Order: sequence, then structure tokens, then C-alpha cells
Amino acid sequence: MISVKEALQTVLNSIQNFDFEEIPFIKSVGRILKETIVADRDFPPFNRVSMDGIAIDFLQFKNGQRDFKIEGIQAAGSIQIALQNSENCIEVMTGAVLPNKANTVIRYEDVTIEDGIATINIDTINDAQNVHPKGKDGKVGDVLITKNTIISAAEIGVLATVGKSTVKVAKQPKVMIVSTGDELVGVDEIPLEHQIRRSNVFTLVSLLERLNIPSETAHIADDKPILKSKIESYLQEYDVLLFSGAVSKGKYDFLPEVFDELGVEKLFHKVAQRPGKPFFYGKTDSCNVFGFPGNPISTFVNCLAYFYPWYYKSIGIKMEAETAILNADVSFKPNLTYFLQVKLSSKFGHLIATPINGNGSGDLASLVKTDAFIQLPNDKIEFKKGEVFPVLKYR
Amino acid sequence: MISVKEALQTVLNSIQNFDFEEIPFIKSVGRILKETIVADRDFPPFNRVSMDGIAIDFLQFKNGQRDFKIEGIQAAGSIQIALQNSENCIEVMTGAVLPNKANTVIRYEDVTIEDGIATINIDTINDAQNVHPKGKDGKVGDVLITKNTIISAAEIGVLATVGKSTVKVAKQPKVMIVSTGDELVGVDEIPLEHQIRRSNVFTLVSLLERLNIPSETAHIADDKPILKSKIESYLQEYDVLLFSGAVSKGKYDFLPEVFDELGVEKLFHKVAQRPGKPFFYGKTDSCNVFGFPGNPISTFVNCLAYFYPWYYKSIGIKMEAETAILNADVSFKPNLTYFLQVKLSSKFGHLIATPINGNGSGDLASLVKTDAFIQLPNDKIEFKKGEVFPVLKYR
Repeated sequence: MISVKEALQTVLNSIQNFDFEEIPFIKSVGRILKETIVADRDFPPFNRVSMDGIAIDFLQFKNGQRDFKIEGIQAAGSIQIALQNSENCIEVMTGAVLPNKANTVIRYEDVTIEDGIATINIDTINDAQNVHPKGKDGKVGDVLITKNTIISAAEIGVLATVGKSTVKVAKQPKVMIVSTGDELVGVDEIPLEHQIRRSNVFTLVSLLERLNIPSETAHIADDKPILKSKIESYLQEYDVLLFSGAVSKGKYDFLPEVFDELGVEKLFHKVAQRPGKPFFYGKTDSCNVFGFPGNPISTFVNCLAYFYPWYYKSIGIKMEAETAILNADVSFKPNLTYFLQVKLSSKFGHLIATPINGNGSGDLASLVKTDAFIQLPNDKIEFKKGEVFPVLKYR
Repeated sequence: MISVKEALQTVLNSIQNFDFEEIPFIKSVGRILKETIVADRDFPPFNRVSMDGIAIDFLQFKNGQRDFKIEGIQAAGSIQIALQNSENCIEVMTGAVLPNKANTVIRYEDVTIEDGIATINIDTINDAQNVHPKGKDGKVGDVLITKNTIISAAEIGVLATVGKSTVKVAKQPKVMIVSTGDELVGVDEIPLEHQIRRSNVFTLVSLLERLNIPSETAHIADDKPILKSKIESYLQEYDVLLFSGAVSKGKYDFLPEVFDELGVEKLFHKVAQRPGKPFFYGKTDSCNVFGFPGNPISTFVNCLAYFYPWYYKSIGIKMEAETAILNADVSFKPNLTYFLQVKLSSKFGHLIATPINGNGSGDLASLVKTDAFIQLPNDKIEFKKGEVFPVLKYR
């Protein structure tokens, strides 16, 4: 049995490259940028007025002049005009080009205007004040967003500004999520006494949706020939297959056999962890196969602990591991990494993880009461309140 | 001029109720649940086998018996069978119903099977082990998810399990985002010297997308009659109008006048904050009007600081304020709340906020380098490294 650390390393050693695609910039939030975004012009592109008021030649003010005849108006979006007489002023609006021959802006709050004359009511003004100089925030050609950035609202604004109406992003993997298990019926069916409804596939769909990955789902009966023929075609068609169930020791846990017969290279089967020990991981030349154990919590935590990092690395981004402070003593004897469900709270800049006991890996409803798994290593038995460990968040 | 605290309170006092709608459960991630989800049956619904192996009558083992003739197989998804002879055993699979008259499961790892006889190789087993008893995780009628929960992958699994193929969620507000300013041109246009491209509306669209709120956008020229007639119809049609620009003191900042003429009740105009001081907030009977100042950072932070909390409260959820630890001394003299851009990092369970200096509220590109705004109150001038303040995260 392989350790969690070795298992994760194995997964990270078999990443894929999904290539890129060009999409409308407004659809790109959450996607990974695959080009460098540079300034197409200076920022700001002109000496930009940053307060509504009047623009003057500072020298006149310095020489004692306080009353300025208004020569005209420079509105935002208008072609630059010029101050004709340096003893006059021009009314200027935020976002406008600073008029030629003017250099300083005094805001309306500090001015009285009467009969076409603006009188400055304050004694201290600075040369070039309230002007955002051309190129101050960036020069044409400057890198504004680096490749492999996750696009958020902040990046969207920059993409719009530089005119990137379409943008190159990493393609998402093509994913099929397969449930097995003859005890499963559809969500809108009424299960018989010995049946339950399918749920893991939908949980996985939602966990992938968090990464903006669309996915398809299928259910296959516990019948080896059917499993084999369907999986054979999925292996051709998809970049990633996620399975839930049929990887343990049961008489109908056909998946490891089927994978073997279909030429899926087994990279490991079983990880020293709780929950989710019977996790199978393998690959073909074109497809990665995650065989998650069928218990709901096992499937859930394995997706967070292995598929997520595999995806992030495949797509070219480095995620910083998040850590939290354990809020209770925990004792765990087995020589396994323990993924313990916790409720998170933020207090005084600290991320606090309070363990919530569920009833084992079948207790799907317990996930509703928690926000994350805290990862307790296998080399210790006692974990003390106040100690810090990695967390896998799902909210 | 109103304080940030008063402004926020005013906004929170004028929330709306958007009613609810019924949608397919699989589309409900990120939406707010507007019904209570109860267990439709016990969890698990039967005494559930939780390990692949054999099921026996524990009494026989206790009396010293170690060899058990295999009577049959109980597969997951099959109708419950019964142990005919208490000296025999039944092979059982994870997820199966525990056979009648059997009570204890021994996993395959601890058993040798030869010629139809299973021999138990260990000396210690517990009565009822590896059986997940009917109703242990919950009883029929138990509340599994409370109303007003934000639906995540965890809730999706539960919804599937209890057969909620459609689910009642809060309707999203109908939002129109309007930019003004004659200096603005479209993203796919080449701006003239004195023009820039529209970006704030797209930033706002993306910030709303984080809340799963779809929105529409429009641009209106700096022309009062046109503004008035368009806004009049938007006020009828939408729950929320978000504006960017035209709320300050400029000659073409027509919005406050237009709002007044159209019967929008002004709740405040100007907040003691930097950036984003000229923020206008008002309402009619059916519409809330957020008039954000046009500078990119001002629009951005006002959306996070006011629209987000307004939405959360309207929709019925209480968001815990997040806090972070300031990672540098900051000095800020004006009697204003200071929303300072910071880069966040998680270290030893601490959320660290490192200030990144931009070039003022026009410096859109600086948002790419940061993750949040830290909110420094107006009653202090010196803020020390190590002190804790609220943060508004946007990643």
C-alpha cells in the first residue's frame, strides 16, 4: 500500500496537456490564461484629468493670480483642446484629456465660479495636481497579466481595456464520470428497500463545476462484459475517467480487472488513508483513470486530494496549500493519513478548523455540516488543539 | 458625508425579496436553498454491509466456530436473502443489505476460502462489526439541509440521495449594469487618442457572476434626455441598476439629477471612504440603484463593500466577515475609511494581507496583482503590522 505522499506524487507525475482555445473574454472567468497580456498603449493613454474642476497653468497661480477667465470646457471623450491664454482656465471633467498648455487641476470644491470667472479659494495647490500622467501606471508593451493566471473580475477589466475581445485559455479536459453498483437507481426514482439513489456522480459533477470543467455522466451495471465494452470506448473518447465504486475486494468489483484487460497501466491501487483506501489510479496514453471507492465521503475526498491537484498542475497553475489551526485534540491510531471533516471559521485572521464527527465514510449528510477536510499525517497518533495542518476546502 | 458604517447600514435596511423558483437540482450549485430538505427514509435505509467479506451469526464465532460453509451471495442491489443455517455464512458485498439472521461481517482480508468453506483467520472480531446500522446517520423526517444554505457539492449529493430532482432556490435579482461617459468605446474598437475602452461594466458582470447572478449591460451617452428616458424604462424592468460613472461633480455627471427627476429616493450620496467617495445609493419601490463612481477601483470596491452584502442579506444568508493580518505598517491621514489593496497568503493557519501600492483609483491593472481590499477604519491614522482588519476578497 502506497502512502498519500507517494500517491499524490504519482498522480502529479502523470499530468496531461489539454492545449488551448480562444474564447470570448467575457466567458473566461475561472479559466486559465494561456497568453501574456500586454498594454496596447500607455496607461493612462493621455494626461488624464482625475477631478472635476478647472485646469490652469500653475505658473500663473504661483505668481499670485487667483481669478481665471473660463475659456472653454474639456469634456471626457472630447478631442484635446488648448489653453489659448495662459492667464485663463478651462473647465475639465474627470476622465478628460488635460488641455494643452494647462498642467494643473483645481477641483470645483476649491473654486467659486461667477460671471465666467473662476476664483480659487485655497492658498496651497501643487504643480500638476489632479492629473494622472500619461503612462504612469504602465507603458505600451508592459506585461499586465502573465500567462497561467486564473482569470477573475480583475483580469476581465484589464482584458477589456486592452481590447482583448477574445482570449486564449487552457482547454478543459473532456471528462466522463461513471457510477457502478446495481443498488443504485436514478434521482427521480423511488428506490426499493435494498436500493439507494445515485449521488456520487452528481457530487463529482459539482466538484468539477467548481473548476469550470463540464462533464458527462453514465451508469454501468455490475456486469463485466458491459463494463468492458463501455469503458473501452470511453478510454478512446475522454481525457479523464472518474469512477465511483467497484474498485474494492467485492465479487462484483470488476474495474481493476477490466482496466487491466483494456491496457490501462495501473500506477497504484490502495492508498494508506482513511477514508478512501481502495483508490485505483492508472492511465493509458491519452486518458487518466481515477477509480474512487464508492463510499460518498471516499469519493469526495479523493476528488479533492488527487483530481484537483492533478488538474491544477495539468493546466499550468501552482496552487498554494492552505492550512488551518486544529480546534480540538484528535487521536487516530491506524497508520493511515486521516482526512478529518472540519467546520472552518475565520477569527482574528486565523483559519480555525473544528472537527465534526460523522458516522464513517458512508455518511454523506455529514458533508453538509462541514466545509473542508483537515489532513492529519500518518506518522503521529495524537494531534493537539492549536497545531496547524493542510486543509482541503470544498466551499 | 456619511460614514462607511452608516452607508452599509442604509444599504442593508433597503434589501429586497426576490421570491423563489424551482430548478433542476444539478443546476443549483451556488444558489440559495429556499426549502428544508428532510430524509425521505432512514440513512442508511437498511442495515448496510460496509466491507466486502462474509456475514455470519456472531454467536457461532463466540462459541468457537471458525469454518463457515458458504450458503450464498448477497450482492449490492439485490433483495435481502436470509442465512438458512446459523452455522453457515453468506458472502456479502459493500453496499448490500445485511442478510437476515446474520449480524456480523468479516472482511475478505481476514478469511481464507477453499472448497466453499470460509475460514476466519483472526481471533478478535466484534459483534455487528462492518455493518452500518439502518438509521444510524439519520431517521426518516430528520432535517438534512436547512433553508438558506448555499448549495455546494456536499448538498448536491444529499439532494440526489433524497430524490430532490428539482429544488426550490432564491430567484436571482434582475440586474442591469450601465456605463456612461463619452470617452468610452467598445472592447473591439480602436480608441482614438482621447478615448478608452469600456471595462467597468465587464468587471461588474464578472463580480456578479461570482454570485451566480446573470446581468445585462448597456452604455448610455452623456446626454441628459437620453439618459432619462432609458433609465426610466430600466427602473420599471429591473430589480437592481448598477451604474459606473456620472455621479460626481462634473458638468456631465447627470445621474443624481436624473434619478431625482425620475423619483428615485436618494438614500445617500458620498461616503467617507477612499476610493469611491462619490458613491450614490437610492431606491424606488421596486428597484435599488447603486451609482458607483467611474474610476475602476472605485467601482470594484463599492460592488464588494455594498452590493455583495446587500445581495447576501436580500437572499437570506448571513456571511461571516473575513479578517486578515496586516503585513506592513500603513499610515493614512484623511478622515476616511481606507480600502487598501492587498495580496493574501495563508501561512500556518494565518491569513496574511500584504499591501500593494497602486497608482490611485484609476489604476485598473493593479487589481491583477492583488486579491482583496483590507478595510482600515477612519478613526485611526497609523495601522501596524500584525493588526487584524476585515478583508473583502475577490478571488
